[in-house]
Amino acid sequence: MNYTPRPEHHFTFGLWTVGNPGRDPFGEPVRSPLAPAHIVRKLAELGAYGVNLHDEDLVPRDANPGERDRIVREFTQVLADTGMKVPMATTNLFSDPAFKDGAFTSNDGRVRAYALTKTRKAIDLGVELGATTYVCWGGREGVETNAAKDPRAALGWYRDAINSLCEYIKSQGYDLRIALEAKPNEPRGDIFLPTTGHMLAFIYTLDHPEMVGVNPEVAHERMAGLDFSHAVAQALDAGKLFHIDLNGQQPGRFDQDLRFGSDDPKAAFFLVKLLEDTQWPGMRHFDSHAYRTEDEAGVWDFAAGSMRTYLILKEKVARFNADKEIQQLLKEVGAQGDAFTSDRPIDVAALRTRGYAYERLDQLTMELLLGVR
Amino acid sequence: MNYTPRPEHHFTFGLWTVGNPGRDPFGEPVRSPLAPAHIVRKLAELGAYGVNLHDEDLVPRDANPGERDRIVREFTQVLADTGMKVPMATTNLFSDPAFKDGAFTSNDGRVRAYALTKTRKAIDLGVELGATTYVCWGGREGVETNAAKDPRAALGWYRDAINSLCEYIKSQGYDLRIALEAKPNEPRGDIFLPTTGHMLAFIYTLDHPEMVGVNPEVAHERMAGLDFSHAVAQALDAGKLFHIDLNGQQPGRFDQDLRFGSDDPKAAFFLVKLLEDTQWPGMRHFDSHAYRTEDEAGVWDFAAGSMRTYLILKEKVARFNADKEIQQLLKEVGAQGDAFTSDRPIDVAALRTRGYAYERLDQLTMELLLGVR
Amino acid sequence: MNYTPRPEHHFTFGLWTVGNPGRDPFGEPVRSPLAPAHIVRKLAELGAYGVNLHDEDLVPRDANPGERDRIVREFTQVLADTGMKVPMATTNLFSDPAFKDGAFTSNDGRVRAYALTKTRKAIDLGVELGATTYVCWGGREGVETNAAKDPRAALGWYRDAINSLCEYIKSQGYDLRIALEAKPNEPRGDIFLPTTGHMLAFIYTLDHPEMVGVNPEVAHERMAGLDFSHAVAQALDAGKLFHIDLNGQQPGRFDQDLRFGSDDPKAAFFLVKLLEDTQWPGMRHFDSHAYRTEDEAGVWDFAAGSMRTYLILKEKVARFNADKEIQQLLKEVGAQGDAFTSDRPIDVAALRTRGYAYERLDQLTMELLLGVR
Amino acid sequence: MNYTPRPEHHFTFGLWTVGNPGRDPFGEPVRSPLAPAHIVRKLAELGAYGVNLHDEDLVPRDANPGERDRIVREFTQVLADTGMKVPMATTNLFSDPAFKDGAFTSNDGRVRAYALTKTRKAIDLGVELGATTYVCWGGREGVETNAAKDPRAALGWYRDAINSLCEYIKSQGYDLRIALEAKPNEPRGDIFLPTTGHMLAFIYTLDHPEMVGVNPEVAHERMAGLDFSHAVAQALDAGKLFHIDLNGQQPGRFDQDLRFGSDDPKAAFFLVKLLEDTQWPGMRHFDSHAYRTEDEAGVWDFAAGSMRTYLILKEKVARFNADKEIQQLLKEVGAQGDAFTSDRPIDVAALRTRGYAYERLDQLTMELLLGVR
Repeated sequence: MNYTPRPEHHFTFGLWTVGNPGRDPFGEPVRSPLAPAHIVRKLAELGAYGVNLHDEDLVPRDANPGERDRIVREFTQVLADTGMKVPMATTNLFSDPAFKDGAFTSNDGRVRAYALTKTRKAIDLGVELGATTYVCWGGREGVETNAAKDPRAALGWYRDAINSLCEYIKSQGYDLRIALEAKPNEPRGDIFLPTTGHMLAFIYTLDHPEMVGVNPEVAHERMAGLDFSHAVAQALDAGKLFHIDLNGQQPGRFDQDLRFGSDDPKAAFFLVKLLEDTQWPGMRHFDSHAYRTEDEAGVWDFAAGSMRTYLILKEKVARFNADKEIQQLLKEVGAQGDAFTSDRPIDVAALRTRGYAYERLDQLTMELLLGVR
Repeated sequence: MNYTPRPEHHFTFGLWTVGNPGRDPFGEPVRSPLAPAHIVRKLAELGAYGVNLHDEDLVPRDANPGERDRIVREFTQVLADTGMKVPMATTNLFSDPAFKDGAFTSNDGRVRAYALTKTRKAIDLGVELGATTYVCWGGREGVETNAAKDPRAALGWYRDAINSLCEYIKSQGYDLRIALEAKPNEPRGDIFLPTTGHMLAFIYTLDHPEMVGVNPEVAHERMAGLDFSHAVAQALDAGKLFHIDLNGQQPGRFDQDLRFGSDDPKAAFFLVKLLEDTQWPGMRHFDSHAYRTEDEAGVWDFAAGSMRTYLILKEKVARFNADKEIQQLLKEVGAQGDAFTSDRPIDVAALRTRGYAYERLDQLTMELLLGVR
Repeated sequence: MNYTPRPEHHFTFGLWTVGNPGRDPFGEPVRSPLAPAHIVRKLAELGAYGVNLHDEDLVPRDANPGERDRIVREFTQVLADTGMKVPMATTNLFSDPAFKDGAFTSNDGRVRAYALTKTRKAIDLGVELGATTYVCWGGREGVETNAAKDPRAALGWYRDAINSLCEYIKSQGYDLRIALEAKPNEPRGDIFLPTTGHMLAFIYTLDHPEMVGVNPEVAHERMAGLDFSHAVAQALDAGKLFHIDLNGQQPGRFDQDLRFGSDDPKAAFFLVKLLEDTQWPGMRHFDSHAYRTEDEAGVWDFAAGSMRTYLILKEKVARFNADKEIQQLLKEVGAQGDAFTSDRPIDVAALRTRGYAYERLDQLTMELLLGVR
Repeated sequence: MNYTPRPEHHFTFGLWTVGNPGRDPFGEPVRSPLAPAHIVRKLAELGAYGVNLHDEDLVPRDANPGERDRIVREFTQVLADTGMKVPMATTNLFSDPAFKDGAFTSNDGRVRAYALTKTRKAIDLGVELGATTYVCWGGREGVETNAAKDPRAALGWYRDAINSLCEYIKSQGYDLRIALEAKPNEPRGDIFLPTTGHMLAFIYTLDHPEMVGVNPEVAHERMAGLDFSHAVAQALDAGKLFHIDLNGQQPGRFDQDLRFGSDDPKAAFFLVKLLEDTQWPGMRHFDSHAYRTEDEAGVWDFAAGSMRTYLILKEKVARFNADKEIQQLLKEVGAQGDAFTSDRPIDVAALRTRGYAYERLDQLTMELLLGVR
C-alpha cells in the first residue's frame, strides 16, 4: 500500500506545532526556533496541504506596521513558491502576561478590550493570508478559585466577545467562519466551556450562531476522559464541525499533544472512520508536537508519521467497510438502521435473552486493526 | 443558627435514594427494601418537601392495571396525609435486561419502541402524582466498543425519542417539562451526550426545545473532572436549569453518589451560592444514598445530614455576600462588572504587572468556610 | 500465522469471569449461571490450561461438609477428564454483607476473625484442587470517610492477617505462595494499599516476605492512570511477580474488566513483550468478562478472543525483536545498556543538542503493531 | 484562637516556591525573580522555620567556584541574621536540556554520569548549609513511549544511582538521609516509580535501605486519584516518612501545586490529623506556588495562608479528638482497636445486619470542619 501524503489529503500543521522548541513546565527549550519559511518548505516537501498560525507565530508581538508588512509579504511569497495554503488562523491570547486572568473573560475590562483589539488584527492577518476559518481558543478563560469570578458574568463577557468578532467579520465583508475550541483545564484550574459539548451549546446563545462552529481537539476531550469520536459526531450532526485538531493524549493528565494515532490507535481508527464515512471536507490539522527528546530530524519524523498514520487508518476504514463478516454482523444487529414497524407486538422476553455479538465484532475489528485480518 | 429543614426549603429525595438497599458490583444488598409509604412518612418528619420516583420504584414492573391503580391510590393517600409532593418523575430504562444495549439508542428497533411505551406510561404515572418535571436519564445509551454503533445513528434515534415524548406530552395536554440528565460512563463504557454541555447542545436540535432542559448531577460532571458550578451556570444562562441532582463524588472514579457536601465542601459552597444568588426556584433534589456500611438508622442520618449541610452552606453564602473585606476585594478586581469605556487608551504594561489578589480572596473564603471568620 | 491457543501457553480463566452473569450497579443479570463443570469443559475445548476460583464460585457459602466434598469430588473428576488444572485459588471476602466494612481491616474484630476462618478454608480447598498460588484481594479493605478508621490501625490488622495466613500455610505444610492484589477504589471509596507499588512495599513489613508476592491487574493499575508494564517490571525486578490478571480498562473510571487487548493494544503489546522477553513462567490469567450485551455464545467469543489476541501480540513481540531498523535505533540510543566509562570527560553541550529518535522508533513500533510493517 | 505561625511549628518553603515567577506551558513569567536573601528575610518575618533549595535556586548552573563560594557565604549570613534554617536540599535534574531523557535513567550513559556528578555537588552544598535531608525527585525519569526504554534496565540504573549516592554520603561522613519523591506523570508521559508506594517498595531493593525514605507530595498522589493520607500512613508505618510536601491538587489533571488546604479541606484535615496524632517530628514543607494571577504581594498572602490554614486544621484536630460524641461513636464501632477474643463464637447474621454509623460520624466531622460544631 501507498501511504504517501499528498496535498489533496488536506493535511495541515500549525507553525507552533513543528516549530515547538520543547519547553515544558520544568525545563528549558531543547530546540532552536524554526523560521516560518523553513517550516513551510519542509512541510511542502513532506506532502502537507498547508500551515496554520497564531498572529505571533509569524509576526512578533511588538513588530511595527512596516516590519509586519514585510514579514507577511515574504511569507506570502514562500506560500506561492511552495503551493502551500493557510486555511486557518488564530490569536495568541495566552502567552502575554497581560492575559493571566483570561482574555475575553478577565475580570479586568481593559484586558477584555485589549484581547478584542488583538483578535481583530489577527483576523485581518489570517484573511490576508487566505484563511477561511478562524479558530478561537481562549487559553486562559477560567479560574483557579470560584471566589474570583461569577461564571455567569464570565459567560456573558465571553458571548459579548464572540458577538463582537462576528460583527467585525461581517462589517469587513470577510469570508470567514469562527471555530471555538474547548479545553477542560490547563493552564487554568478550570476553564469555562470545558468540552466540545459545552461549546456547541454556547453557540446557540450567540447573535450569529450560523457563523460559529467548533474545533474539537482529541487531547482536550480525552483529558476529561470522554470519547472523542462521539463529540465529533455530535458536531457533525449539528452541522458545526468547522475544524478539527488531531493529536493523542492519555486520559486524566496534563495536555500531552502526542503524535496522532500514537497512543490509542483504536480511538484514532474510529475517528478517521467518522471523518471518512461522512466525507467531511475540512482540513486534517495536526495540533501536536514532537517529544522533547527530539532534535529537528525527530520533528520531521513526527510530522511525516502523523500523516502516514492517518493514511494507514484510512485504508483500514475501507477494509472495515468492505469486510463481509463484519458487515454481516452489523446488519444482523440492526446497526444499519433496520426498520422496525412499531405495530408489531414486542416480545420483551426475547429482548432480554438475545445477544448482540459485540465481543465477536470487536475482536474482528481489533484483528483488522492489528493487520492480521 | 438554626439548620432545621422545612418544606419551604424544597428538599426532595428519590424513593430509590433512601430506599437504596446497598447492593454494589461486588456485594449483595445489606438493607431490606423500604416501603414507599414508610419513606414518605419518614422524610416528612425530617422536613423534606417531597419525593421523586422511577415508575418501578412504586409500581412493580409486572403489576397488572388493577394492582397499579391500588398502589397509586394508597400512595396518593400517604402524600395527602403527610403533605409531601411528587414534583418529579422518571423511568427506569436500565434495570431490565431488555435494555442491555440501551433504550432509546439500542441497535434493536424493538427495544427502542419498548422504551418509548414504558416511558409514556411513566409520564402518565408522574403526572397523575402531580409531577411537573420529567427527568430522562437513559442509563445505558452508549457503547463498550465503537464498532457496534454509529454515533450519528444513535444521536438520531435519541432525538426521535425525545421528539416523540414531547409530542406525547403535548397531545395529552400535560403541564410537564423534560429535564435531560448526562453522565459520561458507567454502566456503559462511554455514554452518548456525556456532560451537561453536550446535553444542552442536543436540546437545540429538537423539535420542541422550549419543552426540554437539563438535570445536571454533581457526581456525573465530577466523574469527568469538570467544575459542576460552571455547568449549572451555563444551564442557568441558557434558561435550561429545569432540575438538579445534589450529591458528592471524587473525580475520575466509579459513580459514588455520596452525601451532598461530604466530599468537597468548597465546590458545594459555590454551587449553593449560585443557586441562592440567582434565587433559583427549583427543587433541591438529593440523588445519593447512604454508605453501604449503614443500617436503616444510618439512612436517616444520611438524609438529615444532606439537608442540614445545604442549610449550613446557605448561611455561609449569606456571610460571604455580607463580608466587607471579601466584597471589597471583589469590587477592586472588577468581578462585579466594573464598566470599562473602551476609548480609554490601554496601558498594556500595567496589565502585565498588576496582581489580582486571588490568593487573599481565596484564603478569606476558606476561613469563612472553615468557620474561623 | 497460527494463533490457536494450546495448554502449553498457560492461559487460565476464573470461574467467575466466563461465568459472570452480567449484573451491574444499574441492572439485573442478563445471563444464566454456568455450571463449573460446563465452564471447564468449554475452556478445555478452546485451548486453555486451567481455571481459577473463589471458594464460593465452586462451593455455595452455606454448603454442609458432605455437600462440599461431593462438589469437590465431582469437580476433580471433570478436571481429570479434561486435563485442566486449578493453578490458583482465592476467597470471596466481598459478597457477603458481613464484609461491608472490609474483611481483614473491618473495625469489627469479629469480622476480621470470620474473614480469617473463611480464608483458611478457601486455602484448604485450593490446595486440595492443586493450586500453588493463593491470590488475596480483600475487595473492601478501605473507607468512604477517613473519619471512620485510622489507616495505621488498618495496616496493622492487614499485616496481622497475612502473617497469620503464612503461619497457617507453613503449619499445614502446603506448597503455596500468596499473591496480593491491589486496587485503588471500587467498591470502597479509597482502598488501602491501592497500587501494586503499595502492595510490594507492604510485603517487606511482613513476617515471611519470601512467601508473599503480588498479583498485578491491568484494570486496577489503569484505574489510577498508571502504566501497567512499569508496575509489572518492578514486581519482576523484585522477584515478586507471583501471578498476573490480564484484562483491559480505560483510565479514570469504574472497573471495566474488558477483554485483554481490546482497549489499548499498544499497552498490551509492551506488557506481552515484558512477560515474553523475561520468559516469565507464570499463568496468563484473564480476569475479565464479556460485555453485558452478550449471550453465552458471546462469552465464548470473548474467551477465545482473549487468548488469540495474546498470541497475536506475542508474535509481534518476536517481530519487534527481529526488526533490524528498530533494533539499530535502540542500539544507537543506548537502550541496550551501552557501557559508559565514567572517566571520559562529558561534553554536556552535546547532551543538550542530541536527539534520541524516539518519534521514529515509536512510529516504526506503531506500524509494526498495525501490521503494515 | 491564635493561628500565628512561629518557628517551632517547623514550617518551611522552597526557594523555588515563593520564588516561582509564574511561567507555565502557555505563558511567559509574570513575576520578577526574587533574590534568595529577600525570600529568607520575608519568610522569617512571616514565622517560617526555614527554606529548602535546589542547587540552581541558589547557585547559577555555570557559576565558577569563586562565585559559588561567595554566594554561599552571603546566603549563610542571611540565615544567621534571621535564624532561618536549611533543613533540606535537592538537585535540579530537570531544567537543563541535557536531562531531556531523564537523569539517572537516561538511555545515554553520559547523562547518567553527569547527573550523579551534579547531585554529589548539590549534596555538598546542602550539607554545607546544614541540611540533614536530601530529597531526590528525578523529574524526568520516565518515557513517552515504552518502545524507547526497558523499564527493568531503567530501574537498575535508578538503583545504581541511589546506591552510589548512599556510598558518597557515607564516604564523606555526612549526617544526611535521602527522601525519594514519586510522581506519576508530567513532564514525562509516564514516570518510573509513580507513587509513594512504588518508591517505598524500591527502597527495600537498595544497598542501604536504612539511609533512604520517602518524601510524599499531596499533589503527586492526588494526580493519580489516590488518598494521600493513606500513603503517608504507610510511610509512617514503615518508619520511612523522612520529609513531606504539602500543597493542593485536583485529581486527574496537570500538576497544580495549589496552596495547602485550598482545594480539599477534608483531605487536608485528615493529613494534619495523622501528622499531629503521631507527633511526627519532621518539617511541614510547602511545595506549592501562588496563582499566576498574583503579584509579589499575592505571593506573601499565599505563604501566610499556607501556614495559617495548617494551624486552623491543627486546632480542629484537637477538637475532633476531644469531641465526646465523635469519640463515643469511634469507641462503639471498634475503631480504637477493641480487643476481640477469637474463641468467642461469631454470630455472622449479626455482622450482616449491624450498622457502623459512619454517615453520622462523617456528618459530625464535616460540621466540626465547617465550624458549626
